[in-house]
Amino acid sequence: MFKISILKYERFFFIFSVALILLNNSCVSEKKDDSIMIKNIFDETLVNSECYDNLRILCKNIGPRLSGSPEAAKAVEWGEHLLKKYGLDKVYLQDVMVPHWIRGEKEKAAFIDDNETVFVPNVCALGGSVGTDGQIEAGIIEVHNVEELAKSGKTKIEGKFVFYNRPMNPTYIDTFKSYETCVDQRSKGAVEAAKYGAVGVLVRSMNLKIDRFPHTGTMKYEDGVKKIPAAAVSTEDAEYLSKLIEINKNLKVSLTMDCKTLPDENTFNVIGEITGAKYPDKIIAIGGHIDSWDITEGAHDDGAGVVQSVEVIRTFKALGYKPNHTLRVVMFMNEENGTMGGKTYAKIVDEKKEIHVAAIESDSGAFSPRGFTIDGPSEKISKIQKWKSYLEPYNLHKIEKGFGGVDIGPLRKVDANLLLIGLLTDS
Amino acid sequence: MFKISILKYERFFFIFSVALILLNNSCVSEKKDDSIMIKNIFDETLVNSECYDNLRILCKNIGPRLSGSPEAAKAVEWGEHLLKKYGLDKVYLQDVMVPHWIRGEKEKAAFIDDNETVFVPNVCALGGSVGTDGQIEAGIIEVHNVEELAKSGKTKIEGKFVFYNRPMNPTYIDTFKSYETCVDQRSKGAVEAAKYGAVGVLVRSMNLKIDRFPHTGTMKYEDGVKKIPAAAVSTEDAEYLSKLIEINKNLKVSLTMDCKTLPDENTFNVIGEITGAKYPDKIIAIGGHIDSWDITEGAHDDGAGVVQSVEVIRTFKALGYKPNHTLRVVMFMNEENGTMGGKTYAKIVDEKKEIHVAAIESDSGAFSPRGFTIDGPSEKISKIQKWKSYLEPYNLHKIEKGFGGVDIGPLRKVDANLLLIGLLTDS
Repeated sequence: MFKISILKYERFFFIFSVALILLNNSCVSEKKDDSIMIKNIFDETLVNSECYDNLRILCKNIGPRLSGSPEAAKAVEWGEHLLKKYGLDKVYLQDVMVPHWIRGEKEKAAFIDDNETVFVPNVCALGGSVGTDGQIEAGIIEVHNVEELAKSGKTKIEGKFVFYNRPMNPTYIDTFKSYETCVDQRSKGAVEAAKYGAVGVLVRSMNLKIDRFPHTGTMKYEDGVKKIPAAAVSTEDAEYLSKLIEINKNLKVSLTMDCKTLPDENTFNVIGEITGAKYPDKIIAIGGHIDSWDITEGAHDDGAGVVQSVEVIRTFKALGYKPNHTLRVVMFMNEENGTMGGKTYAKIVDEKKEIHVAAIESDSGAFSPRGFTIDGPSEKISKIQKWKSYLEPYNLHKIEKGFGGVDIGPLRKVDANLLLIGLLTDS
Repeated sequence: MFKISILKYERFFFIFSVALILLNNSCVSEKKDDSIMIKNIFDETLVNSECYDNLRILCKNIGPRLSGSPEAAKAVEWGEHLLKKYGLDKVYLQDVMVPHWIRGEKEKAAFIDDNETVFVPNVCALGGSVGTDGQIEAGIIEVHNVEELAKSGKTKIEGKFVFYNRPMNPTYIDTFKSYETCVDQRSKGAVEAAKYGAVGVLVRSMNLKIDRFPHTGTMKYEDGVKKIPAAAVSTEDAEYLSKLIEINKNLKVSLTMDCKTLPDENTFNVIGEITGAKYPDKIIAIGGHIDSWDITEGAHDDGAGVVQSVEVIRTFKALGYKPNHTLRVVMFMNEENGTMGGKTYAKIVDEKKEIHVAAIESDSGAFSPRGFTIDGPSEKISKIQKWKSYLEPYNLHKIEKGFGGVDIGPLRKVDANLLLIGLLTDS
């Protein structure tokens, strides 16, 4: 019926602004004025948004930017420069010590039957994994959860690879819930398998599709438990591996990975502020994380959150809007593998006795926005829920109690009553 | 934060099913049962949907399928085969006479200064346009609306091209509204310009982006007004043309197009039914249009609507659900340039005295679903609005009075009280 092109995602950036402006006014007293201001914000971001240009530079020119890497350093430089360009009142870097894990050069696996390679799967090391120190070749046992691991016990597991193959549950509209149904395999799979003497783990990728792209992600070791290598295998190859194991009880797997963790690196959160006209000491923080995994451009995760946050400031400047509270943009470092940016930010807030009115985070991707999830006192949430009528014209229909965000999460320890607000998008 | 892949659009297909099942039950009496059924429908479509495979075949294997073309005939064949494959109770073709416009081989323009070509813009004929019968070379005048046309008058326009250059208004969250702000230039621009003696029109493409892709679309002539050729120019080239005209009042444009309209063709609507268990004579129709423009695969417009409609039937069959009313899938022909499929369908309904409970159409693209717009008696709409609680868990938050759809629209003349329901998506 219609012949048009779509600036679909432009609109996402405005909703952060809306939230901020509503938060900035201590109450929504003059309905008419607020509605007009919101419409102005909306128009400005739809027509003049610089989000996509900024995102393109971050993702295409700088690219993957894992904490500690030279690209992460470049991203910090870019972020600082961008905030200065938009003429904020203050722009500064905040020191953050981060883990420095590198993937290395070699990363390969093979399925072996009777000394012959029958298949070369697509694998990648999980972030934080130790390397294999040469090649490990061993038998393999498939499990779907920790209970099956315990049931198999040391006799069946010792000296072998453990293959975690529980698929994500596909029956949720919120795919983050699907993710939660099996991410434990990735995060603690190696630790649990090591307790039974496994030599390494292969984990089915967190992916609802059946394809040949292995997905990395963070995993953790435990003090006192041997650190064994952990790799993700693509979903298609996981399905195939399962069949191979079924028909060949003596199937072996070889794995070579020279990933490793180097000494911690000093890097930065990038911070910019517009000083509040009435309450300069009261802060509304808004942010996303500037780091990404090393094998992805991280546009959704979380370049979008970074450029959205910056766009709020650009929009306010363009409209000549002077906020009552201090608006602070934070580009957090190291969300992916340590959250040291978020933890450090909260620590400094605590040390300096800074007062936050709210902290807003965007780290759920840049698909269609649906509203916000809020972690905080019920009475404050109820108050925000009254703003629904302002947001509904822009298709933002959900303001719900829920998760704020990984990077702003550590602020909870500093202030038990603080509003932690997460942008809610289609997953 | 998250490392997942997304089967994002799968969910869109289920909501048609939901609407149907709610319509099918004359009232939502047993809340619990309906909720469970809806969840089953949802799970089935998320896990086993065949929509993407079907859409791929329609768009990639068959491709562009303008009414009257051999590809449109192939699409009819494909549609009939697909419905038979899913084991419907009845599958049949309904004769439809459609206009048969062809683009031809030549389609080019040039901007000429002092007998020299200064720029070759990207243009395409508007659907239904006459050809140029050789090359037309003439001066050009830029206008932004019909009022400016009248103001310029015959003296300034006669013997020239008219260039309509009003951009889409970008400040709507619903881009269909932006489209409405200037589609008149395309649909009646040639007729209006011809009244002042213009030799042809160039129309800025209906596109919010500035790029070099010209967009076709339908246009109409008027009896008694000379038929002059009409071409779309890409938005980027429209901006450039505007500048060229400004600095060079003697700029000429040459246009060569050998598009033409052939005699009407006999083709078909493709129809399939599951016979109602209780009320076989009462029909709930659901459909999209199987034709597309000739220079696009038509995935959003409207392959999506077709495969969504088919998916409803597939899902019900898979779940063993036997509807009370007859469920009828209709793949309408010729929505793009004549709506003869919709008009013929309504005519036959009237002739056969068929009774429709409701007709549902999907022709707004396959971005995130938001709910439904309904054209019908207020009391019936109010009743449907009570189903909101069933749909909200699936992020369908809007059930509003509004437009049903282009193809089901002609049914209004047959039954003034019929519910015409349009799937509402992000635009």
